[in-house]
Amino acid sequence: MAIEDLKNRGMERADVDKRRKAVEEITGAKLDNVSSYPFEPQAAAANIENMIGVVQIPMGFAGPVKVNGDEAEGEFIIPLATTEGALIASIARGMSVISAAGGARVKVFRDGMTRAPVFRVKGIDHAAEVMAWVNDNPDKIIEAVKGTTSHGQLTQIEFFPNGRSLHMRFTFDTGDAMGMNMATIASEAVCRLIAENTGAEMVSVSGNMCTDKKPAAINMIEGRGKTVIAEATIPKQLAEEKLHAPVHAIVETNTRKNLIGSAMAGGLGFNAHAANMVAALYLATGQDPAQVVEASSTMTVCEEVDGDLYISVRMPAVEIGTVGGGTKLPAQSEALSMIDCKGAGKARKFAELVAVTVLAGELSTLGAQAAGHLGKAHADLGRVKK
Amino acid sequence: MAIEDLKNRGMERADVDKRRKAVEEITGAKLDNVSSYPFEPQAAAANIENMIGVVQIPMGFAGPVKVNGDEAEGEFIIPLATTEGALIASIARGMSVISAAGGARVKVFRDGMTRAPVFRVKGIDHAAEVMAWVNDNPDKIIEAVKGTTSHGQLTQIEFFPNGRSLHMRFTFDTGDAMGMNMATIASEAVCRLIAENTGAEMVSVSGNMCTDKKPAAINMIEGRGKTVIAEATIPKQLAEEKLHAPVHAIVETNTRKNLIGSAMAGGLGFNAHAANMVAALYLATGQDPAQVVEASSTMTVCEEVDGDLYISVRMPAVEIGTVGGGTKLPAQSEALSMIDCKGAGKARKFAELVAVTVLAGELSTLGAQAAGHLGKAHADLGRVKK
Amino acid sequence: MAIEDLKNRGMERADVDKRRKAVEEITGAKLDNVSSYPFEPQAAAANIENMIGVVQIPMGFAGPVKVNGDEAEGEFIIPLATTEGALIASIARGMSVISAAGGARVKVFRDGMTRAPVFRVKGIDHAAEVMAWVNDNPDKIIEAVKGTTSHGQLTQIEFFPNGRSLHMRFTFDTGDAMGMNMATIASEAVCRLIAENTGAEMVSVSGNMCTDKKPAAINMIEGRGKTVIAEATIPKQLAEEKLHAPVHAIVETNTRKNLIGSAMAGGLGFNAHAANMVAALYLATGQDPAQVVEASSTMTVCEEVDGDLYISVRMPAVEIGTVGGGTKLPAQSEALSMIDCKGAGKARKFAELVAVTVLAGELSTLGAQAAGHLGKAHADLGRVKK
Amino acid sequence: MAIEDLKNRGMERADVDKRRKAVEEITGAKLDNVSSYPFEPQAAAANIENMIGVVQIPMGFAGPVKVNGDEAEGEFIIPLATTEGALIASIARGMSVISAAGGARVKVFRDGMTRAPVFRVKGIDHAAEVMAWVNDNPDKIIEAVKGTTSHGQLTQIEFFPNGRSLHMRFTFDTGDAMGMNMATIASEAVCRLIAENTGAEMVSVSGNMCTDKKPAAINMIEGRGKTVIAEATIPKQLAEEKLHAPVHAIVETNTRKNLIGSAMAGGLGFNAHAANMVAALYLATGQDPAQVVEASSTMTVCEEVDGDLYISVRMPAVEIGTVGGGTKLPAQSEALSMIDCKGAGKARKFAELVAVTVLAGELSTLGAQAAGHLGKAHADLGRVKK
Repeated sequence: MAIEDLKNRGMERADVDKRRKAVEEITGAKLDNVSSYPFEPQAAAANIENMIGVVQIPMGFAGPVKVNGDEAEGEFIIPLATTEGALIASIARGMSVISAAGGARVKVFRDGMTRAPVFRVKGIDHAAEVMAWVNDNPDKIIEAVKGTTSHGQLTQIEFFPNGRSLHMRFTFDTGDAMGMNMATIASEAVCRLIAENTGAEMVSVSGNMCTDKKPAAINMIEGRGKTVIAEATIPKQLAEEKLHAPVHAIVETNTRKNLIGSAMAGGLGFNAHAANMVAALYLATGQDPAQVVEASSTMTVCEEVDGDLYISVRMPAVEIGTVGGGTKLPAQSEALSMIDCKGAGKARKFAELVAVTVLAGELSTLGAQAAGHLGKAHADLGRVKK
Repeated sequence: MAIEDLKNRGMERADVDKRRKAVEEITGAKLDNVSSYPFEPQAAAANIENMIGVVQIPMGFAGPVKVNGDEAEGEFIIPLATTEGALIASIARGMSVISAAGGARVKVFRDGMTRAPVFRVKGIDHAAEVMAWVNDNPDKIIEAVKGTTSHGQLTQIEFFPNGRSLHMRFTFDTGDAMGMNMATIASEAVCRLIAENTGAEMVSVSGNMCTDKKPAAINMIEGRGKTVIAEATIPKQLAEEKLHAPVHAIVETNTRKNLIGSAMAGGLGFNAHAANMVAALYLATGQDPAQVVEASSTMTVCEEVDGDLYISVRMPAVEIGTVGGGTKLPAQSEALSMIDCKGAGKARKFAELVAVTVLAGELSTLGAQAAGHLGKAHADLGRVKK
Repeated sequence: MAIEDLKNRGMERADVDKRRKAVEEITGAKLDNVSSYPFEPQAAAANIENMIGVVQIPMGFAGPVKVNGDEAEGEFIIPLATTEGALIASIARGMSVISAAGGARVKVFRDGMTRAPVFRVKGIDHAAEVMAWVNDNPDKIIEAVKGTTSHGQLTQIEFFPNGRSLHMRFTFDTGDAMGMNMATIASEAVCRLIAENTGAEMVSVSGNMCTDKKPAAINMIEGRGKTVIAEATIPKQLAEEKLHAPVHAIVETNTRKNLIGSAMAGGLGFNAHAANMVAALYLATGQDPAQVVEASSTMTVCEEVDGDLYISVRMPAVEIGTVGGGTKLPAQSEALSMIDCKGAGKARKFAELVAVTVLAGELSTLGAQAAGHLGKAHADLGRVKK
Repeated sequence: MAIEDLKNRGMERADVDKRRKAVEEITGAKLDNVSSYPFEPQAAAANIENMIGVVQIPMGFAGPVKVNGDEAEGEFIIPLATTEGALIASIARGMSVISAAGGARVKVFRDGMTRAPVFRVKGIDHAAEVMAWVNDNPDKIIEAVKGTTSHGQLTQIEFFPNGRSLHMRFTFDTGDAMGMNMATIASEAVCRLIAENTGAEMVSVSGNMCTDKKPAAINMIEGRGKTVIAEATIPKQLAEEKLHAPVHAIVETNTRKNLIGSAMAGGLGFNAHAANMVAALYLATGQDPAQVVEASSTMTVCEEVDGDLYISVRMPAVEIGTVGGGTKLPAQSEALSMIDCKGAGKARKFAELVAVTVLAGELSTLGAQAAGHLGKAHADLGRVKK
């Protein structure tokens, strides 16, 4: 009977309760906290199957932080959901230093979501024919995209022939949605069109050159989603007083750790812990946590400029949305409201705030490591049990 | 006044409420849902600062799935927290196929958490001296570790000299904790000892060869946390009936996409969407979502063996714990109970279930892509608005 | 006196002899063989300084091989200079199989030499201004290029801003020259123009995103020099008779070794030994042996198609010329004549033959490894002393 | 008839002449220079098949350079074979600066040649059994190695299980030989032993985790052949006078180019042009030019220390020998004599000189780029025709 209830597919609260009770009965677990949530399950109908409740991730904030973005302008209190003690304290410290220094400058340099199908072709001549057909028929392809979406636009097609495989990489403007689904559905339509006209067989709508949710140099080089850079200049005295480390020590830490260390590790992420900030902000606001992977290919650079500390973070792949996905869930939507990033017209602004939050976390951690007390911070604030 | 309340550092419910109200006042956001959670904030005192409430991530389940692990033995209902429609349905389908095929075999091949400090030395002669001192004084080093932890044990030190930088990579047995904090604190003690005895200066307790929360080949090659492999053999008929794709088509999809496509992208992740499964299971159970990054360096392999489908996932870096961190939070703890992975003695078992869940998700997605209807699944179940 | 003669900079034979004698006197080495060469040293005046003679690399050949290229059409005897016993025998075996199978198809898919300067800018706003200036002034930039070369044409500029660094990647059509020097000189002129007009300071004409003579994913993804693919289909029976291995065994070897093994090694080269063939052909024909590095990022793919063996090699970065550099040296020029690739109008043809030679070597080695006697081949032909 | 002569396999001079004439007849090429060489072809019998003559690569020298190595001690005149104008002049300049600064310090930190077979196993349980058998039978394995070589010793076995593939990485001490053949033959013997005792099937004696002649992070991390680091400290005034660039400009060039630029390119080589120096020295001395690939994964670091310039190169994979391979050829042997690196007991000394030569070339090029006249140097010395 419990097993039967597991198979219930409904999304009324009673269905959810029935499933959860079945799970409790079968596993012997008590799921009281899981059962506690302030919204109707239907609100999550597009976000999950087999729902039995929720997991509560503690939410806090860092800031206010002063931001001089192309879109994000002013002071922001950033919502962050995390279970890692000391993280928010560290980001908050970085934001306080940045604000005292006049704020962070931030800019979106590129914008486009990608999907990269792979076709089977008969060989390189066939590959060349398929490529020629695609190049010769932009109108038909644009029409195929339009048949699937009124928001998305195909902006570029790249070709990567390889024997009997022909990879293509489509780039889409997806407006304020993260756009993965939109891009997938539009790509499938284009792939069908190509297949019908050329005899190429679509093997997968995603041939992994997208690259979605896997680390890959192609995203670091060409970008995916938004490519954003944030920067700040921290006066020498401020660095010493608030970060307890001289500027040259922070620069040295960044060079030996984030540049040299990551390179020697065969790494694709040249930062201290960008993924921490990204994960906390993504979770709070309903973004896809698996896309923390691409965001982790961030590069942090520190330089001593006229005695002061210049710090920047280059984030080649910030894949976010302010509509769709998890952004409509109740608490997530509230968190987006905290930074006025809810709904249409806000995606670039939100991407800018992601980069500023990463900048703050990087600054703080580099300062702490330069000052030699990373472990101590964790022991105190994280209340680590030895 | 609101600004004052932002600075409150207390963790009583009244403190949390005060901070949240201050945020509401300053930002104009309504945070009703954020304010709703069934536990006392002190329960999260080691997990967050500036708490204002929670974000609820919908939790569902997939399974039961039959598992033949060294530690995980039997049928399991896997808790998953996600906001990506169609994900759980896909994993559940994979699990159903795996169970029908007799279950997944899974094994932990390596276990050890790493932390890699970087020192400044005077040059290569000094580097060689420091290395010699470390090699000659294992007893002192072990003693220094013991002074910081009774659970962790230092099991290996590797050296990576590079001019005036000397990187070392320490590996620790951290029991059932994920162990990052334990490793950091123990490493700092060892670094101080080395510095005092050799004149090497610790620049950072983490020189990025760890590598924590960044993609890096070193983790793929040497492993970090648990290195786990899961496998299953799906009879030909089962594949065709349940996955609607012939075995050779699934193998072909995996080869052109996960092997060739990822390689051409300069990738470090040779899988379809391992990060999705990892993120959903990590969130449900209080793991660190930023460590999805390392887990995404998974390799999926498919082969046709005697007409049947053999599928495996190699996960070199499953960094998890069943004690400490977010695992003690109420709902997260309940989720761990669902799979009997709460507390001491359960970390390897949990790591096995991570790999089996990834196996199921990979199988299902590869099947769907081979059958050519990935986009359709999202359009139906994910209820994508075009 | 000997020391004085070392400093002689002349290129008459007497100068060369004087220098060599000085080296003999100082080092005690006898350089009789080094002194033996059939041409006047002035012929090498653009190729070397401090010349004391030559090193003779044994030259042999493989082939004839049947080629169906866009440019290379017919049977070719390929000149190869090597000191690795068994290499030519192996390539020759591969060519014999390819010819028996009707020849190799080969095609150049992309052509362009790159140089990637790096500028120091004041920050991201300045970076954006510099990028805008470049985008707004194509005419001035083209003019600057024309002032340095009549053969080279700038075809693309990509931007990679990163804090106070602004990397650009210039692509040039360099005709039949490998084109590195041409690209460097033209790039310097463009950089001066940009610097004068924008205040950006050129830090290096090569900021390593080129990427020249270093392994890099950017070349694998975007290509450098010629991107060439060669393929052949080997009938089942031919494979079994000549390679002594069934088709499925060759495919399996390629998958476990060139795809899976290279991926697990964190590699950028998915082949067996492409560098061997490239080095031997480059040396014989006066190409730059340091550019074997980029050519080693080749991907070899094997598939069973209707029972036969399909094999292809994708070479994203074949950086070669048929004019300039070492191609004018006497023996090198003769070697180019062997394949009718001397002088203007032959660069693409030559690139095709590079790929076909790599295809032959890959086929032979994969066959040998599949048949399990790689070590034996070396022991017999390479006359290895145990 | 000419075709018949092509098939002649003899190594008498008459055989070589006959083959060359056949090639001339068939291709129409005149091979006069190819035919000119001062030694009997039998001297190359272990190095080539189908020999038709030689290619002469111009040989020059750079130095003397002062070296303070563990093995290489004193002043050395380095033989270099190249066709790239300006290269030797640049290296010579670097050596002159290094010598004026008191010489380069250099040290071999690791030594071991690797070969990495891949086996097919039945699954992960079988993989674990095979690994256990190997761990339990060191004596049998050592005996198997001894049956193939009296010089080589197996020093380490690493395991990389992955589904039905089981990769192992064997490390050998190969004395003064580069050791690839020795390692291959010994590995085959070990593989046969493992196969017989465990039922694992050897798919290839090289499963690409070696990694030979392909770029791979595993070599950068674990090393292959010799891991060597060279360093020098250039006084501030010397840098300014001889390199025409202030110390901070050289450091900046190295950081923006070799660290940041290479990282953004998804690179595995963090240097300016290490491959140039390696190729020139390898060619002159009979090393394998295809192994320039691994050597190109060098990292160059520059720091300002007390106002002076500290520069180092870390070369993780210098794969060289002073016996065997091409080292016995006449001119190559003479070149080794120039640096007293001929024969037994000299391999580490030679590896040290490789690193010092790379150091000199890096220093010179970074200086030139910092001073802004790389293009000019090529235009003057390389005599580039525009």
